[in-house]
Amino acid sequence: MNTLHAAQAAKKASIAAGVLNAAQKNKILLACADALLRRSPEILAANKIDMELAEKTKIAAPLIKRLLFNNEKLTESVQGIRALAVLPDPVGKVLSVTELDLGLTLEKVSCPIGVIGVIFESRPDALIQIASLCLKSGNAVLLKGGAEARETNKCLAGIIQDITVREGMPMGWCTLLENREEAVQMLSLHEYIDMIIPRGSNEFVRYIMNNTKIPVLGHADGICHVYFDDSAETEMSVSIARDSKCQYTAVCNAAETFLVHEKAAKRVLPPIARALSCTEMVIRGCSRVRGIINAEEASEQDWRTEYLDSIISIKIVHSLEEAVSHINTYGSGHTDSIVSADADNARQFMREVRSANVFWNCSTRFSDGYRYGLGAEVGVSTSKLHARGPVGLEGLTIYKWLLSGSGHIVADYVSGAKKFIHKKIL
Amino acid sequence: MNTLHAAQAAKKASIAAGVLNAAQKNKILLACADALLRRSPEILAANKIDMELAEKTKIAAPLIKRLLFNNEKLTESVQGIRALAVLPDPVGKVLSVTELDLGLTLEKVSCPIGVIGVIFESRPDALIQIASLCLKSGNAVLLKGGAEARETNKCLAGIIQDITVREGMPMGWCTLLENREEAVQMLSLHEYIDMIIPRGSNEFVRYIMNNTKIPVLGHADGICHVYFDDSAETEMSVSIARDSKCQYTAVCNAAETFLVHEKAAKRVLPPIARALSCTEMVIRGCSRVRGIINAEEASEQDWRTEYLDSIISIKIVHSLEEAVSHINTYGSGHTDSIVSADADNARQFMREVRSANVFWNCSTRFSDGYRYGLGAEVGVSTSKLHARGPVGLEGLTIYKWLLSGSGHIVADYVSGAKKFIHKKIL
Repeated sequence: MNTLHAAQAAKKASIAAGVLNAAQKNKILLACADALLRRSPEILAANKIDMELAEKTKIAAPLIKRLLFNNEKLTESVQGIRALAVLPDPVGKVLSVTELDLGLTLEKVSCPIGVIGVIFESRPDALIQIASLCLKSGNAVLLKGGAEARETNKCLAGIIQDITVREGMPMGWCTLLENREEAVQMLSLHEYIDMIIPRGSNEFVRYIMNNTKIPVLGHADGICHVYFDDSAETEMSVSIARDSKCQYTAVCNAAETFLVHEKAAKRVLPPIARALSCTEMVIRGCSRVRGIINAEEASEQDWRTEYLDSIISIKIVHSLEEAVSHINTYGSGHTDSIVSADADNARQFMREVRSANVFWNCSTRFSDGYRYGLGAEVGVSTSKLHARGPVGLEGLTIYKWLLSGSGHIVADYVSGAKKFIHKKIL
Repeated sequence: MNTLHAAQAAKKASIAAGVLNAAQKNKILLACADALLRRSPEILAANKIDMELAEKTKIAAPLIKRLLFNNEKLTESVQGIRALAVLPDPVGKVLSVTELDLGLTLEKVSCPIGVIGVIFESRPDALIQIASLCLKSGNAVLLKGGAEARETNKCLAGIIQDITVREGMPMGWCTLLENREEAVQMLSLHEYIDMIIPRGSNEFVRYIMNNTKIPVLGHADGICHVYFDDSAETEMSVSIARDSKCQYTAVCNAAETFLVHEKAAKRVLPPIARALSCTEMVIRGCSRVRGIINAEEASEQDWRTEYLDSIISIKIVHSLEEAVSHINTYGSGHTDSIVSADADNARQFMREVRSANVFWNCSTRFSDGYRYGLGAEVGVSTSKLHARGPVGLEGLTIYKWLLSGSGHIVADYVSGAKKFIHKKIL
């Protein structure tokens, strides 16, 4: 199928999908969950083909781990769909009501965005999560998954299309694009596609941001900081340092830089370094850090680098203000945390750091749609507009203004014959 | 002043502006209102220079009318600023609170966007409105006004900068760019500018949308429709037709196309045509329209055209569905209205039309920030993301997620030692 035709069909389908009510959508979601379980042998067989090819072509072990789609992953995915079915409908929520004048009432009501293009990485469970989030939020979706997961994705998309269209979704609401070329074609289809969510390598995300007029919701870098304040408790500092950096180094919400207040440095740096050393961590520090612990010399470039690996850069700062300024300058607006026993300092940090997620006395790794209780996420956004941080159902909706009158005309208000009352109802 | 330096200064200032509290901002707004009144002789003198040059260079009469800035306009602007000072602070609103686990609380809090670039037309009162909206919402702003209003804008911006910085706004929070070249330079400064709001000719807005990586909030076309349903009352139809089309033809929320249900056509078209004829309206109709009233022949291109003039295109449709489909195909997503005595039809129209503003039994001309009770507007958006319709204080803010714990780490939840409770508090 040609990408243009898929996008045109998606636009048409999005109108019908956008007006389905909650009961219809939830019924379709539950039917979809059942169908995936019923057809699990096909899914596992398709995944076996992908896994064999991946092993033959010697794809890196972490990628292979993500590619595996077994009964356990399927059960989790199905639970995710069922959890989504019980959440309230994000569409048609009345967000505000104002009586502009007698009999002239303005409502702000949530509605779907339209057509979403999502480019995601190798995990096949992402396909199920994204498709079900788009279904629940009344959007049409064009999906492009990782090449390694080709057979699994084809199988999953086929099952989802079959059952959802049979149960009432409009034909063409969900299309799987086959290759990277088709994904790139999407970028020029701003007439049909309302938003693109890219997930994948930084270079690919940046390429997309630079090559489309379609609004892109996502993040390129995840340069996350932990700042250890003067008053940071030692034990908590060590625990949060280890969790933020080592719990999973390859993800966007892992820390890349630690900032340490000069008055805390001698106390917290040695135990932090010991805690990190058990995972073969490379430490790159400023000259003052290197006076306290063993570390390679950090360059200016280190403050701008997302390692996604067992490397951490550490800098000593004079003050909270310097820490905030460093984060607002070198950070990527993703997630930054302060460890501090001083509530005033913590509040100042949370007010002044401009990132999408700002934390106090907890690990940067918490910034995630599931952990936030959003049900699931289609991606994480570091944009300044629309949706920030983990993007769930709400980030897939927007609003429209509905005004109901009984023949009201503007001329009466311009002439002064009538006056607005602007009475806030909700 | 160089545009790059202005943008860098604005970014720096935006951090300080973003953390001012409501009392500080309101005090500055009131001082600004007083200063504008106190220095009115300078403003009127500057406007006199612009007006004389405009008359000398034979600028079109409507433009000259918009350019005039007299005591009456100043009083209105000052009232606008004072009205803004009593509105609640759009920054720091707690939008949601979730207890993720004992002692681990997630808040979603509104915050400023950062640096806004606004390109606006000849009305000097727009400068005051935009600057005061940005001040109240804690954003820094780069302004570019129309060349005709050069002296007035310079004078107004100077007064606003003087008083607001003296009263506590950070230096550089508000800069007036001098010429179009500087405005174009803004487009490449995505590192410093978070959003651009262009107001002006369609071509200019489209040029901006096509030439920047900065998110653009605005609208190019305003192709607004009124659909007269089978059950539309004749008198109401005539009144809404006249107000939507004739009350002010040169604005984006004026109607450009009427759609008429075939069963209503013979009844409503002749009186509508008579009502429009008193304003020398050119009517372009489909063949069936031309069988009922005098009209030029409409081409396919007419359905896609924003006339902004005394021209209206009219089409007869078989059904509500055809009207909705026409609007979703040819409209620009700005404002569309149904005239109907049938509530079911009206609800269907409001659900299915995907525009930012969808109306029932009232004039398209109501879609405006002041009329909506938003206080004022920086522009009207037909985007699908972030903010739609008239954009006031709320559209100038976004949110960040704040997470507060007491040493919480993700490893405990991954291992199963702890479980999320996700208790919704607000």
